[in-house]
Amino acid sequence: MSAVNSRPTPESLQPKDLAQERQQCSFSIDALSCLVPGGRQHRDHARWLLSLLKDDPDKTFDKERRVFQSRNARFFNGQKVALRYFEIRNRHGLDKKDADALRLLTDEYLPVQVSESMFQPTLMRQASEQQWQEWGPMVRSGRWLGCYMQTELAHGSNLSALRTTATLDTATDEWVIHTPEPSAGKTWIGGSGLTATHGVVMANLVIAGKPYGMHPLLVPLRSLEDHTLLPGRQAIDMGPKQGAPAMDNGYVCFDSVRVPRTNLLSRFQTVSREGKYEPRNAQAKTLTRGTMTLVRVGLCEIASHHLARACTIAVRYAVVRRQGSSSTPGSQLEPKILDYSGVQQRVLTAVASAYALTFASQHLRGIYERMMSELEAKGSSPLLPIVHGYSSVLKAAVTNESLAAIERCRRSMGGHGFSQASGFDFERNQPNAGLIYEGENSMLLAGPAANFLVKQLAEARKAGTGTRMPELVYLDLVVEDKLDRALQRGRQYDEIDLSTPEKLLDILGCRAAKLVSELDKLRSSTIPALSKGRSGDGAKSHMLTDLSTRASLAHAAYLISHSFYLLTNRLVSQHLHNLSSQYGATITQAHRTALEDVLVFYLLQNCLLSPSGLVDLLEYDILTPAQVQTCRAIAATLMSGPIRRDAVGLVEAFDMDDWYLCSPLGSSDGRAYERMIEWMKREPLNQSGEDGGREQNGAMKGYRDGVGRLIRGEAVQFAQKSKL
Amino acid sequence: MSAVNSRPTPESLQPKDLAQERQQCSFSIDALSCLVPGGRQHRDHARWLLSLLKDDPDKTFDKERRVFQSRNARFFNGQKVALRYFEIRNRHGLDKKDADALRLLTDEYLPVQVSESMFQPTLMRQASEQQWQEWGPMVRSGRWLGCYMQTELAHGSNLSALRTTATLDTATDEWVIHTPEPSAGKTWIGGSGLTATHGVVMANLVIAGKPYGMHPLLVPLRSLEDHTLLPGRQAIDMGPKQGAPAMDNGYVCFDSVRVPRTNLLSRFQTVSREGKYEPRNAQAKTLTRGTMTLVRVGLCEIASHHLARACTIAVRYAVVRRQGSSSTPGSQLEPKILDYSGVQQRVLTAVASAYALTFASQHLRGIYERMMSELEAKGSSPLLPIVHGYSSVLKAAVTNESLAAIERCRRSMGGHGFSQASGFDFERNQPNAGLIYEGENSMLLAGPAANFLVKQLAEARKAGTGTRMPELVYLDLVVEDKLDRALQRGRQYDEIDLSTPEKLLDILGCRAAKLVSELDKLRSSTIPALSKGRSGDGAKSHMLTDLSTRASLAHAAYLISHSFYLLTNRLVSQHLHNLSSQYGATITQAHRTALEDVLVFYLLQNCLLSPSGLVDLLEYDILTPAQVQTCRAIAATLMSGPIRRDAVGLVEAFDMDDWYLCSPLGSSDGRAYERMIEWMKREPLNQSGEDGGREQNGAMKGYRDGVGRLIRGEAVQFAQKSKL
Repeated sequence: MSAVNSRPTPESLQPKDLAQERQQCSFSIDALSCLVPGGRQHRDHARWLLSLLKDDPDKTFDKERRVFQSRNARFFNGQKVALRYFEIRNRHGLDKKDADALRLLTDEYLPVQVSESMFQPTLMRQASEQQWQEWGPMVRSGRWLGCYMQTELAHGSNLSALRTTATLDTATDEWVIHTPEPSAGKTWIGGSGLTATHGVVMANLVIAGKPYGMHPLLVPLRSLEDHTLLPGRQAIDMGPKQGAPAMDNGYVCFDSVRVPRTNLLSRFQTVSREGKYEPRNAQAKTLTRGTMTLVRVGLCEIASHHLARACTIAVRYAVVRRQGSSSTPGSQLEPKILDYSGVQQRVLTAVASAYALTFASQHLRGIYERMMSELEAKGSSPLLPIVHGYSSVLKAAVTNESLAAIERCRRSMGGHGFSQASGFDFERNQPNAGLIYEGENSMLLAGPAANFLVKQLAEARKAGTGTRMPELVYLDLVVEDKLDRALQRGRQYDEIDLSTPEKLLDILGCRAAKLVSELDKLRSSTIPALSKGRSGDGAKSHMLTDLSTRASLAHAAYLISHSFYLLTNRLVSQHLHNLSSQYGATITQAHRTALEDVLVFYLLQNCLLSPSGLVDLLEYDILTPAQVQTCRAIAATLMSGPIRRDAVGLVEAFDMDDWYLCSPLGSSDGRAYERMIEWMKREPLNQSGEDGGREQNGAMKGYRDGVGRLIRGEAVQFAQKSKL
Repeated sequence: MSAVNSRPTPESLQPKDLAQERQQCSFSIDALSCLVPGGRQHRDHARWLLSLLKDDPDKTFDKERRVFQSRNARFFNGQKVALRYFEIRNRHGLDKKDADALRLLTDEYLPVQVSESMFQPTLMRQASEQQWQEWGPMVRSGRWLGCYMQTELAHGSNLSALRTTATLDTATDEWVIHTPEPSAGKTWIGGSGLTATHGVVMANLVIAGKPYGMHPLLVPLRSLEDHTLLPGRQAIDMGPKQGAPAMDNGYVCFDSVRVPRTNLLSRFQTVSREGKYEPRNAQAKTLTRGTMTLVRVGLCEIASHHLARACTIAVRYAVVRRQGSSSTPGSQLEPKILDYSGVQQRVLTAVASAYALTFASQHLRGIYERMMSELEAKGSSPLLPIVHGYSSVLKAAVTNESLAAIERCRRSMGGHGFSQASGFDFERNQPNAGLIYEGENSMLLAGPAANFLVKQLAEARKAGTGTRMPELVYLDLVVEDKLDRALQRGRQYDEIDLSTPEKLLDILGCRAAKLVSELDKLRSSTIPALSKGRSGDGAKSHMLTDLSTRASLAHAAYLISHSFYLLTNRLVSQHLHNLSSQYGATITQAHRTALEDVLVFYLLQNCLLSPSGLVDLLEYDILTPAQVQTCRAIAATLMSGPIRRDAVGLVEAFDMDDWYLCSPLGSSDGRAYERMIEWMKREPLNQSGEDGGREQNGAMKGYRDGVGRLIRGEAVQFAQKSKL
């Protein structure tokens, strides 16, 4: 038996372990951190934005306390953060993109989030020029804090069923806004519970007894003097949620509230003094549709950001946590948990996702910006339906993949992942809520995303080949009846092919083509009834939902991987010298190799070998079982080889700041255990004083009349019939 | 355009919608609620236990406030619940099983949980008779509240690496218990942070410089007088977690703490006055091993319980929530969301899981009890390794499946599932923590659960056929080399076969046999290196982990389905008259049909058609793609037909009480919206007064010096360079 505690202490090992990982990394991490966001200037700009919060002298943005706070305290802290955010945004005159980034970096759903992300954009787009001239300065300065009131308690996605009405009273020239019954109260309205002064209310316009459908109206909510609710308004906070504690999602009812007729947002229609309804600016509405997809583009970026963050924590922890018996003969040390295949499968797949989703988001942003400049220059763009389609499928696929991988990262930390010392509190906010808003993900995948693909196939059939977006070229296989030949070719792919990005993309393209084509066929067919006497009713609907979702996911996998491929392809096809000057950092062959390894690993492990990928490949005979085994071997070799070796470098290239991460277990110095102990001490239950849990002598408050009674034998004694 | 708001109000529809669902149910729900737990007496006993909490006059156990409370408030409320729990348990002299059930029904991880579930059982099993005589009365009455201190900050699963020492001081006849460095502090110790008076400490015994490995010692923690920590002890609460706010998981260090030599738990070894270490009672240790699996049996039951609860909420909500355009011509009403295939796929698969996991847990409990009576009668039982193996795989598979299905239920509720009004706060507690403790699930599946199967296969080869447990008979296919023939037969199964439970079980058996056999082969083979010049190092480890996990999951699917099948088979093979007297309720053919439908649906949709199931079936050519399509059609027909029709009856047979559910959106009267509004009003941010968020006039507290400054224009104004 060995001597007692002869191993080095974990405390002494941890910083060394992390330092050693950085040393073994095959590339310059600093240079990769410039490459990932598109260049040194982007990285440094993000650092500057963060510094506005991190270095703020009054420490408003410090986050350490948050997880120890009650909902109340966290909400009121959010108010302080919101005010300070406005001051910084105003002082520096940040544009929308920077202001959005700054709010993201506050790391809290703020009560002013919707004022900035929905209220102001809606007014900009849908108010008339005259209205915006009048309202704009108040909104832009933050003197009006707004909310966007669409969803009702009983109605969300089915807009036509909303029941709030705005009835024109021609006698007084006013709209009368009314909530007909409690379940028609506006619900989930961010910022409305306690904060907003105004709101845009979506209501069914009623003029002379005739309904005109949903329209936006500007409605003052609270007094600009003392912030009390104005007459006829009821607005309360909706109570605790899975996350977002600083946000006052509200429930708002109107009891015949009157606003001037001119409060109807009038860019796209006017209602005259006499009640005449007239549409206007029909062509400009296109521009609005384009702008609307911007929210989804942003959601993809946010989802990638949070995943990169989760990976950083999980990888660092996995190299400073040692556990188990060493498999290296002679080594006294326990292995780092990142050397277990089970942990690699959870965490390194998340790292690959973080890269893929980051590049996919950048790609989507790029197409979006091309579309917007075409729209602004020419008033139209062929990219409009494309960007709409891509953003539908990517919003769902990216937020799904991000949350799943974040949760894998958290669980990879074992028991300590259950502690908020892990720094995963953020998971409850955007990553979780992101599945639901701007289209619930499962509905998006089964509906709009799949409809887009079937429509693209139909258009490709009409238009012939050659005009497709690169991410949709695979549809030509169907149009030109070449799919079977492509599949046959794919089944010949050998080990070399199955390590080559282009070939792996081909396979993903065949998969997507096959599924879109199957979906297209199913939509226009009937299902044979089962013979057992049971009716096939409902069965077709299920099979359509199933196949639609699969087609959407197959397309998403192609789209995401293709974006990643575009980047690695650019890296390989350009001189290192040019790349270095483009990115403002010394890009080397090692960077090319590392990113291509991640791409191939992503294509294999996250796409082809994922359960949903494998089912498609095997069911439609796209790969043979022997090829699947080869894919597994290649992926496993990458995973346990270069990706494992570079893991710390790969995550640290996301440039996550310690102050921002706020994760004792994932800090950059590796002192996980010491930091966790320091962190525990902050728990109020360990403090005495008013908000603490203990008396001055350290015993818990209320002990004497609480369990003290049990311990002193004053509580009910055990009955004799006990069988314990 | 239709008239404004001509549809009936949701408020008036909801109660009717739920009532109509009960009417359309094909069986007596009351009778099924007797059948599910094994008989009317079981159901009524559970009701009686709940009534002890629900009808308690001082309302200690009411849960409505909890989700509105801070960690602090919730912890101190937990103290009250704990005290009252002891009084009830003592007054009624509840046995262990009832006491466990009562704690579960308090619906909170209590600070005394570990005292009851770990501290007391450990003392009972590992203390000597004399020690137990002395300590037992204090422990049983609750006058000593204990904890179980094993895990350290830096070490969990690798017990041999724990660093806390207990060194014998023969001069004073004491153990000196010591934490060598902060990372060796005991961590996650339930109840230790503020509550426990005592603990069992696992420490490395050191006698005369020689380590003897981990042993349990009884160590007083806090004064029985004033509850302050005794000298040399440090114990703090570990801070906020993902869940379990009322539990004071603690971090505990010992600075050369002395306890008498006789505090070493001495049933299995003694250490003499002179320091002589002697093992004893080796054969009784077997009994202990058997008892240890009891915790895992309990975890399966708890996981099934929580899933049944989630299903009840989700199904009720899905029939009172109407949304979207009606597909029924002429109907003015929007469809119930349970009529969407996407919602059915999430929720009805969860219902099927709830049934399967419930019956699997009951089956496991039955085998466990058989084993215990054999052990007690004969001192040995051939069931010992079986129960150990089954409980390893089921603990992991059941808690995984339960949490995944609970989360599916929550998400099926769309946006409102993000509100705590859904009643899903419980998900953060046991369902989430259950993945980690008593063996982290992914480790269990890749390790012990798979090892058990390979070992069973080896033993089957030695022993020949015919002696297997029914759940392992499929191994005979491998032993007798009949697997290929069985697979060939399976590929001929037609639509009738694929609707027959026995045949579907055959398929699952073939799958499990194939995977265990492949795993067995892989473990004794080497992987061919890849030709691309990359090393295959690490690849085998990944493929082993992968195949081990798949084999364990395949076995779990068989085991769970087989338990369910045993029940339906018993129902079919016995006279309804006998069944009715056995269950104390009128069991009809409709009950048989309904449960068999659920079983077939579970076999198809949750097992064969799940992504992991499909991959196995297709990769190993167990079913043809055409058979897979047939399975989909049968499953979809069941899902949209009888299972959908009976959904409310199926979940209400779990007999979940409204007071217990505490879910405004899932209440039995269907008044989801009205109840949610009432619930929102309780939010402290909507109250004035000390703990509230508002001033007397209803404006938010601190408004004037907070965002009021922004609104009055006193904050920094927007800089002119803005591009907003």
